Amino acid sequence: MTRTRTGVWFVGARGNVATTAITGARGIARGTTDGTGMVTAREPCSLLDLPDVDGFVFGGHDIADRPLLHTATELADSDIVDRETLEAVADDLREIDGRVKTGTARNCGSAVSLADGDTLDRDHSVSEVVEQIRTDFADFVDETGVDRLVVVNLASSEPPVRDAAKYDTLAAFEDAVESDDADLPASSLYAYAALVDGHPYVNFTPSTGSELGGLRELADRENVPHVGRDAKTGETLLKTALGPMFAGRNLDVLSWDGFNILGNGDGKVLEDDENKAGKLQSKGGVLSNILGPNMHNRVRIDYTPSLGDWKTAWDHVHFEGFMGTKMSLQFTWQGADSSLAAPLVLDLVRLVSHADERGEGGVQKHLASFFKEPMDVAEHDLSRQFAMLESYVESHRDDADETVDPVSMRTDGSGIDADTEANR
Amino acid sequence: MTRTRTGVWFVGARGNVATTAITGARGIARGTTDGTGMVTAREPCSLLDLPDVDGFVFGGHDIADRPLLHTATELADSDIVDRETLEAVADDLREIDGRVKTGTARNCGSAVSLADGDTLDRDHSVSEVVEQIRTDFADFVDETGVDRLVVVNLASSEPPVRDAAKYDTLAAFEDAVESDDADLPASSLYAYAALVDGHPYVNFTPSTGSELGGLRELADRENVPHVGRDAKTGETLLKTALGPMFAGRNLDVLSWDGFNILGNGDGKVLEDDENKAGKLQSKGGVLSNILGPNMHNRVRIDYTPSLGDWKTAWDHVHFEGFMGTKMSLQFTWQGADSSLAAPLVLDLVRLVSHADERGEGGVQKHLASFFKEPMDVAEHDLSRQFAMLESYVESHRDDADETVDPVSMRTDGSGIDADTEANR
Amino acid sequence: MTRTRTGVWFVGARGNVATTAITGARGIARGTTDGTGMVTAREPCSLLDLPDVDGFVFGGHDIADRPLLHTATELADSDIVDRETLEAVADDLREIDGRVKTGTARNCGSAVSLADGDTLDRDHSVSEVVEQIRTDFADFVDETGVDRLVVVNLASSEPPVRDAAKYDTLAAFEDAVESDDADLPASSLYAYAALVDGHPYVNFTPSTGSELGGLRELADRENVPHVGRDAKTGETLLKTALGPMFAGRNLDVLSWDGFNILGNGDGKVLEDDENKAGKLQSKGGVLSNILGPNMHNRVRIDYTPSLGDWKTAWDHVHFEGFMGTKMSLQFTWQGADSSLAAPLVLDLVRLVSHADERGEGGVQKHLASFFKEPMDVAEHDLSRQFAMLESYVESHRDDADETVDPVSMRTDGSGIDADTEANR
Amino acid sequence: MTRTRTGVWFVGARGNVATTAITGARGIARGTTDGTGMVTAREPCSLLDLPDVDGFVFGGHDIADRPLLHTATELADSDIVDRETLEAVADDLREIDGRVKTGTARNCGSAVSLADGDTLDRDHSVSEVVEQIRTDFADFVDETGVDRLVVVNLASSEPPVRDAAKYDTLAAFEDAVESDDADLPASSLYAYAALVDGHPYVNFTPSTGSELGGLRELADRENVPHVGRDAKTGETLLKTALGPMFAGRNLDVLSWDGFNILGNGDGKVLEDDENKAGKLQSKGGVLSNILGPNMHNRVRIDYTPSLGDWKTAWDHVHFEGFMGTKMSLQFTWQGADSSLAAPLVLDLVRLVSHADERGEGGVQKHLASFFKEPMDVAEHDLSRQFAMLESYVESHRDDADETVDPVSMRTDGSGIDADTEANR
Repeated sequence: MTRTRTGVWFVGARGNVATTAITGARGIARGTTDGTGMVTAREPCSLLDLPDVDGFVFGGHDIADRPLLHTATELADSDIVDRETLEAVADDLREIDGRVKTGTARNCGSAVSLADGDTLDRDHSVSEVVEQIRTDFADFVDETGVDRLVVVNLASSEPPVRDAAKYDTLAAFEDAVESDDADLPASSLYAYAALVDGHPYVNFTPSTGSELGGLRELADRENVPHVGRDAKTGETLLKTALGPMFAGRNLDVLSWDGFNILGNGDGKVLEDDENKAGKLQSKGGVLSNILGPNMHNRVRIDYTPSLGDWKTAWDHVHFEGFMGTKMSLQFTWQGADSSLAAPLVLDLVRLVSHADERGEGGVQKHLASFFKEPMDVAEHDLSRQFAMLESYVESHRDDADETVDPVSMRTDGSGIDADTEANR
Repeated sequence: MTRTRTGVWFVGARGNVATTAITGARGIARGTTDGTGMVTAREPCSLLDLPDVDGFVFGGHDIADRPLLHTATELADSDIVDRETLEAVADDLREIDGRVKTGTARNCGSAVSLADGDTLDRDHSVSEVVEQIRTDFADFVDETGVDRLVVVNLASSEPPVRDAAKYDTLAAFEDAVESDDADLPASSLYAYAALVDGHPYVNFTPSTGSELGGLRELADRENVPHVGRDAKTGETLLKTALGPMFAGRNLDVLSWDGFNILGNGDGKVLEDDENKAGKLQSKGGVLSNILGPNMHNRVRIDYTPSLGDWKTAWDHVHFEGFMGTKMSLQFTWQGADSSLAAPLVLDLVRLVSHADERGEGGVQKHLASFFKEPMDVAEHDLSRQFAMLESYVESHRDDADETVDPVSMRTDGSGIDADTEANR
Repeated sequence: MTRTRTGVWFVGARGNVATTAITGARGIARGTTDGTGMVTAREPCSLLDLPDVDGFVFGGHDIADRPLLHTATELADSDIVDRETLEAVADDLREIDGRVKTGTARNCGSAVSLADGDTLDRDHSVSEVVEQIRTDFADFVDETGVDRLVVVNLASSEPPVRDAAKYDTLAAFEDAVESDDADLPASSLYAYAALVDGHPYVNFTPSTGSELGGLRELADRENVPHVGRDAKTGETLLKTALGPMFAGRNLDVLSWDGFNILGNGDGKVLEDDENKAGKLQSKGGVLSNILGPNMHNRVRIDYTPSLGDWKTAWDHVHFEGFMGTKMSLQFTWQGADSSLAAPLVLDLVRLVSHADERGEGGVQKHLASFFKEPMDVAEHDLSRQFAMLESYVESHRDDADETVDPVSMRTDGSGIDADTEANR
Repeated sequence: MTRTRTGVWFVGARGNVATTAITGARGIARGTTDGTGMVTAREPCSLLDLPDVDGFVFGGHDIADRPLLHTATELADSDIVDRETLEAVADDLREIDGRVKTGTARNCGSAVSLADGDTLDRDHSVSEVVEQIRTDFADFVDETGVDRLVVVNLASSEPPVRDAAKYDTLAAFEDAVESDDADLPASSLYAYAALVDGHPYVNFTPSTGSELGGLRELADRENVPHVGRDAKTGETLLKTALGPMFAGRNLDVLSWDGFNILGNGDGKVLEDDENKAGKLQSKGGVLSNILGPNMHNRVRIDYTPSLGDWKTAWDHVHFEGFMGTKMSLQFTWQGADSSLAAPLVLDLVRLVSHADERGEGGVQKHLASFFKEPMDVAEHDLSRQFAMLESYVESHRDDADETVDPVSMRTDGSGIDADTEANR
């Protein structure tokens, strides 16, 4: 294992996912919890020479000012953060609080902007906002002395960008920044600020982030790894596991209706139709890729406050088999969003750091299995996406001190969390 | 397409699966239905040079004497056989009735033996039973002039064989036949009768069939293709699609409880604990392969007459994620067993015929995706099993007149049943 | 049993519910089916002296012209009409087709008006439409010689009426008819036409119907029975059975989310937000009556074409118990809407006929258990509504030739359909 | 409110239900929690002059010696006990620990007897055991000075008693005690010890308790209230709410399959077929009472350790409606058994105390709604059982200082927990 100290910068650092990721990472460092739920804590990824979670140093931006410990305590009340870990890392959270800076909420939708936090936006032009973000990044690196800074977007879903094509070149994007363009969304400003100074960038949300042509050009020019978007944690994960089963058996899916209810801040923001648009697009698209475009395909996300961070999804799949017989599959998924997302955040930091260290800039296609709308990858079949990750590991075997059986994702017969210990 | 006439011999020819397969195949021949639900009716398998379903000629054994048309009409009342097809093939069914011979029910369990049908067993020694079966096969080939005979076991689940190891060599098996061994099960007698005369054999059920060492030896000696066992049509299919998702995401499955209720003859036979034993073993095993042996793993099958052929399965998966958070997935599968099974029967006949024509004898490992307990294959991950089938197709591309993109199982973007038409 | 011939006039006579009711009633008359699903076919109602279903004579209005037999055949394909009955009543359906007249679709919403049927509306003023409807009723009575005519609204849900208060008196209503008021909905025109000539009226839908103050005044003046609205057949029925359980146990329901998917014409019309408004209002209201207004209460209805008449509802109930423990109940209801509704239509015709014969005009409050939004009844607890029906029966015992144990709704221990036979 | 101090004696005082009841009662006394989940904390029962929960003084028997605080802490980890309450009552639990005496486990089944606790049984005859129990009761009353002692059986389910008829008279029962009868179960010994000294007795479990003829005779002679058995907290509660809906609508239930999985000590004991027998009998019986005996009716209870106290039940109801259309309802109930049971325990103590104070001895039939197998009551319809409770309250209105509207179970429109405050 590399004893690197990796800077991890969360945009939306005070949200549930960021708080869970920070708390869990510090819990791993302090030995109160393990890597269950982390893809990199098991084979094949555990065979890579990845930076330790212990060595993660956290900072971030947010427009809210609620202390991390406050949020983490609430998450413990909802069984998402475990109490032993909470106590063990309370001081760590207080310290990290001091490294969370005020951010931007430009074009994040009225649902976000109306939240009563402070932002950089009131008195600053777009270019000033970008400058401030870059300064925040640089200050963090200076102060903490980390070897590398990975920027992860965990902020609330933004509405889709109006006319994204107009930012198709880096020149156009930079012109827009300079001319105080009114349409540029916060997520892309953060992505720009990261990439222009060579910091790897992960877009965990459905927001635009580094998707714009100009930012892709920048990442390629600077040879910086970036990847996104919209992490696949629950209902959509299931769709990409189950869809190929129907396809492979030549069963004709007539309709797939998915209803999601949740009660966290994400749910509240998504109540706004504007913000929901981006989310529904990425959730809905995966099935038509796998099952063809003719199927009736509905996704709804509704806000039910009492559920808190616990998302409950009911999906109804109506399909036709031999001689026109109609059958159905229903499933109910009861998952804690932050609990499912947080370990993947840590995974992605480790994996883009690995790429960055090896000079593998640009879009990280082998990480497609993590996303609902993987950049530059058309494949949505989860198992084929997993295979892409395995191939990547396979091609980096020489780095590592152990060999891996390419057929098996399991180290041994004793269970799935074999490598967890080694990870601490 | 090869214009072969393929003999298809069903052991259990009057049961629901056989009746559905026959009716559907004749419906395809008569143009009233299509290949939905058939794996070979889409890519990659559709790229192989497989025998036409139109050219299938059916015969079989059973111990019941209910006319096929009677069963098919009942299945139409349960929406499993479509009415237009039923009318179109009524005469075909009457004709096929004449080619169903009285079979054996040795060691099929008291639930089966008590059914008031006639059997070969009353007045015949084991070796006489075997002789009669071989004669029935030979007569059928003579009378119909088919190019090849594929024998498929579709009879009710037998109890597990007592001390299977004693039939580990062909010599031991043949001695047992000669000495009127009391433990030999019907399924293995049929398998022997098929293999010894070079007829490919498919074991669609959890019964023993060709699993015995002596029969494997025979198949290898005669270079006859055979494959089994226990076709994967519903709940277990889902398990092998969903299990790898949990494993791949390093989520720790604590318990997986599956409850199946069904009301057809299969359900009735499985009410008997003795017969259920074999079934539960193959249903339960797949998960420990995928998720490790430490998980609590329960499968129940119960008989609920009102459901008829419609099996309803409820599965509850309890799993732990990051920082010990416990979450759950439930699914309810409402499928018509015969409707899901019948097209796979036709697929397997086509695929073992393909192997037989090319001299590829022995266990057909590339067909593992069809079975709960695939012979000689430890892999239970559905997507990896599908990949084995794709590799097989890939290695036979030269046979076919078209090339296939190895990454995609879909011909084009227009849907999943693209190749159905070409298949008739 | 009274050997009355009862005229039954369906507004929306060619829809699925009407077609199922007509087919089933004629099947009962012809002895191919029975009264399963009919509340009046079991105690306590079976103890009343109700008109025979055999004696029902059907007519109606519609704006579509599809033959009843066509719709009934489609319903048989969906397992809603049974095939034996379909064959037995085919001639009856053809005859009834001749008694279905062109109706009005005024203010039925653009979703209905755009359906390519003919209406009375193009060339007629409101008062002319009303005259035509009255003439149609009168002609039917003349031609068939029925003893009584019951008008039942089974047409698609209308949007809510704008400013219903302006029709609060009969005088105001009649003025509006005369002055060709643009806001009067079809359902109220039919209700007026029925009541003014003394025909009992049942509003089976969420449309306005006889709810307006002016029409209530008319019903009271003429002493005509009327009742409504929005029959309780599926998800809402369950809510009114389950809600009181939570209330009675002092469990605090935090949220109740209900998602309905269906694929019939009703679903298609309800896709239109305007038409959906009325429906959602009556579906949502029942729970706040039972569980208090503070609960999060969501109902969605979505159109999924492949489901046809089969409505699938998933409800998620989140509740809090002792010491704040949060628990949940989910249910999935898979019901054929027309199959559940049709027998209740027949019940209501029988019960309002009973009232009419006894001079019991005005709103029929004792029929509250049939409706989501029962007129003049605040009670939504299903069991208390059933008790109201029992009390009514109890108070009419002298009419009947048998006594009933008021505590038990079951005649004997042998099952629930004991009285079915006697009913034919 | 009466300022009585009520002694509450739990047989099985260290189990989850008892621990939750004690913790919650003390939490109510200390003001950290309220009466949510308690039937007596809302109308109609809140109108009775019931003893305060604050005044409950706890003692009990058990064969385990795990401290209450230990169990309560575990329950807090499972979200059943709330943490604020746990802290507030920790000292109370330590004090109560000192009042839990060693009990008997005679005929409790090998699953219970093998648990490594101490019992009275090793060195004592049946009559000595009874004497010891009576002494424990008397000592408790002496030491605490309570006004009344209510004994509640909360111990694990026993196997059914062999030949219960032989204890049909009090004389026969007492002879059996004297002659050291080998078949007498612990639950009946406790019931005898309670009743003979005039202590009201509640059998919350499916065990025999006071069901025996001899004990009923004793209760009548001494005019002591007693009631049971098998509290209705989850799946069965739902059945008795939903069953009458099907019956009332004349829908023909073909099959009702219920599968329960749970992981607490109760689940472990019920793994034993012997102990399960009693439980399944009372769970299964309710439906045949409501829906008639011809329905296919299955109940399974399985032990899934990872679920702990959280019972998950899946029920599948298959029913037939008009013209033979088959439909289904499924529900999944996810409830914490102890959380649902504990408030009912407190309710029953309050209600039998109320009866005892008024000299209303014998079986308390008006409490039928609390039980799966209510003594001397054939009615299983939940709403009719609730009505019995309302009638009881109505007939005791003069006692209370407030009048109640007999039609409404709700005090006002503001929600269901209106009376909670007044109750503390």
